[in-house]
Amino acid sequence: MIYADNAATTKLSKTALQAMLPYMEELYGNPSSLYAFGQKAKEALEDARARIAACIGAQPREITFTSGGSEADNQAILTAARLGQRKGNRHIISTAFEHHAVLHTLEKLKQQGFEITLLDVHKNGIVTPEQVAQAIREDTCLVSVMYANNEIGTVQPIAEIGAVCREKGVLFHTDAVQAAGHLHIDVEKQNIDMLSLSAHKFHGPKGIGVLYAKRGIPLECVISGGGQERGKRAGTENVPAVMGMAAALEEACRDIDSNAEKLIPLRDRLIAGLGQIPYSELNGDGENRLPGNVSFCFEGIEGESLLLLLDDKGVCASSGSACTSGSLDPSHVLLAIGRPHEVAHGSLRLSLGEDTTQADVEYLIRAVTEVVTYLRSMSPFWRDLVSGKRPHVFSE
Amino acid sequence: MIYADNAATTKLSKTALQAMLPYMEELYGNPSSLYAFGQKAKEALEDARARIAACIGAQPREITFTSGGSEADNQAILTAARLGQRKGNRHIISTAFEHHAVLHTLEKLKQQGFEITLLDVHKNGIVTPEQVAQAIREDTCLVSVMYANNEIGTVQPIAEIGAVCREKGVLFHTDAVQAAGHLHIDVEKQNIDMLSLSAHKFHGPKGIGVLYAKRGIPLECVISGGGQERGKRAGTENVPAVMGMAAALEEACRDIDSNAEKLIPLRDRLIAGLGQIPYSELNGDGENRLPGNVSFCFEGIEGESLLLLLDDKGVCASSGSACTSGSLDPSHVLLAIGRPHEVAHGSLRLSLGEDTTQADVEYLIRAVTEVVTYLRSMSPFWRDLVSGKRPHVFSE
Repeated sequence: MIYADNAATTKLSKTALQAMLPYMEELYGNPSSLYAFGQKAKEALEDARARIAACIGAQPREITFTSGGSEADNQAILTAARLGQRKGNRHIISTAFEHHAVLHTLEKLKQQGFEITLLDVHKNGIVTPEQVAQAIREDTCLVSVMYANNEIGTVQPIAEIGAVCREKGVLFHTDAVQAAGHLHIDVEKQNIDMLSLSAHKFHGPKGIGVLYAKRGIPLECVISGGGQERGKRAGTENVPAVMGMAAALEEACRDIDSNAEKLIPLRDRLIAGLGQIPYSELNGDGENRLPGNVSFCFEGIEGESLLLLLDDKGVCASSGSACTSGSLDPSHVLLAIGRPHEVAHGSLRLSLGEDTTQADVEYLIRAVTEVVTYLRSMSPFWRDLVSGKRPHVFSE
Repeated sequence: MIYADNAATTKLSKTALQAMLPYMEELYGNPSSLYAFGQKAKEALEDARARIAACIGAQPREITFTSGGSEADNQAILTAARLGQRKGNRHIISTAFEHHAVLHTLEKLKQQGFEITLLDVHKNGIVTPEQVAQAIREDTCLVSVMYANNEIGTVQPIAEIGAVCREKGVLFHTDAVQAAGHLHIDVEKQNIDMLSLSAHKFHGPKGIGVLYAKRGIPLECVISGGGQERGKRAGTENVPAVMGMAAALEEACRDIDSNAEKLIPLRDRLIAGLGQIPYSELNGDGENRLPGNVSFCFEGIEGESLLLLLDDKGVCASSGSACTSGSLDPSHVLLAIGRPHEVAHGSLRLSLGEDTTQADVEYLIRAVTEVVTYLRSMSPFWRDLVSGKRPHVFSE
């Protein structure tokens, strides 16, 4: 099996598992308890918080543990919205290709009377600081732009966008779920006020994430109840998961450069190989993209069939994001970068991991080429393209 | 060490850990993925859902996975509130001694214009169906009464309260976080519309819980985003934790009667032993309480000192709930059952587990007696009681 869906989820690293086991097997005390057995768990939790903070240039008290990236995104946006509301500022800026954890939360706020501006995304999959600057108004309470896109892997100029926001006095949130552990993060230098990350995207456990919020930002509770996380996130602390996350993030951050050095040539070889398939095109910028992300559209192809036949060849891949794989709608990300509907349906995302080999990449190129050729040979739609009945979108 | 704080959290069972490990080490696929490796995780998840449903007499599609009991409580209450709101019904009934995950969510709703009736709790720690019946109005959209209290362990007449609600056509939610795995649950027979549970209270993993909602109740999202959990709870499914929860719940439910048979005599011996301490009283009903719960108030004692000295003797115990242990306020539960402030400060909760022994109980009696005696010998407050300067609350 070649696992090429690391953007959906990653294998738990051995280091992370080893960090979790003691807290699953023995040190199970509730960190909110007064006795030493509970305080031992509390100390571990706080040590993990400090280590995670250090990985992104934050202070420990700026780190709040959540159940994952979606909860962190929800909480960041709701926090900014409530703060804005109090001052009568009900305008939020985001982009058309954010994750649904951002977009659906914004839709909810729209129903509550907020005005949402979703910036267009350039066809290379990048949003510019100038676009953000132009969109900011007197009543803007939040700018939320993702660090790296989860489908096409393009990396946004976060530090520059953050600088624009800071200059204008507007809170800046970035969904760094795909970036954390793969790209360097420094919340201070990058002018980030709030940031979301999710452990299972960097070989940590599922069900745990972080909301970073700059000191002084009073977080709005998404989950109300007990006084855990300084009253900002109720629920017994998931100590084993936090320990796994801290270990995985430290490991990933230590290896960011060496992993990128290894992955970028593999990624570029894969892009070049798939680019040989006629009437295909890479989605998003060729350079400003995650080291492991390859995303293509193929004319005359239906994404679901492509995935199922690749599965038969032992390849785990996805068309867009895993979160929306049940949906028949074309990816909102691909539409946002201007792909026409019929092409957006024929998309493929291959996300490489640290254990992907050169041989894997060559196999992937062969497998995808074979499956695309086979599917086209069966497709009436493709025959119409070949015969000239329908116009091509891409060039040969 | 004697761990007598099983109401705060429990040790992960070996069965649960074994059920988790394959999904942590190998079968890490995203259940939302189309390929076989992801579908294997999906099948496991759905199998676990069916097994959990069977444990509480529900249908699999009535089970939604959450990050824990607090999230489930939040979601249940917000769901009923939104449904009520649409019909102009903005009255909610609950009790004064609910968990903060319920009370704080209700406070939020109050700020949004809901009217909240918190029923008084009888001094034995029980709320009656008659109280609920009397409080229900035309515009009541929800009754939320916990199954078993987390501090004093008293068990509520859930089936009867549910029957009252069903007769009046009002949604009934019960926070069963302390009950699940310890008391029998049958959502059909007990007339329960929504129910919350948390795995780490019955030897499952932390960070995972369930919201049961009767078919036809359209859940309101607490966490918005991807389409997981049929669109009702966004975020990549925490498969390992779900597998651990299912295994732990099956194990706990299988052993409910045998565990109770073992624990009740130990509990009653402990109650009798601590009852020998002068000016002490059991909190809550002696019979209608969780098999492992012992909760006492001691006159002239400060709970925190009691816990720290017990810790020195190797006893893990708590005063109230772990979730509020950082707070200096006396327990709202003890105030709700009519304990005066000065006595509520001197509370102790010992929650026994399946591995508690007779010898442990005898040790606990000796240890608590010694510590209470010692603390009183140091206390000016106690001297005032003894000298008659202050009146006693309890009898000798």
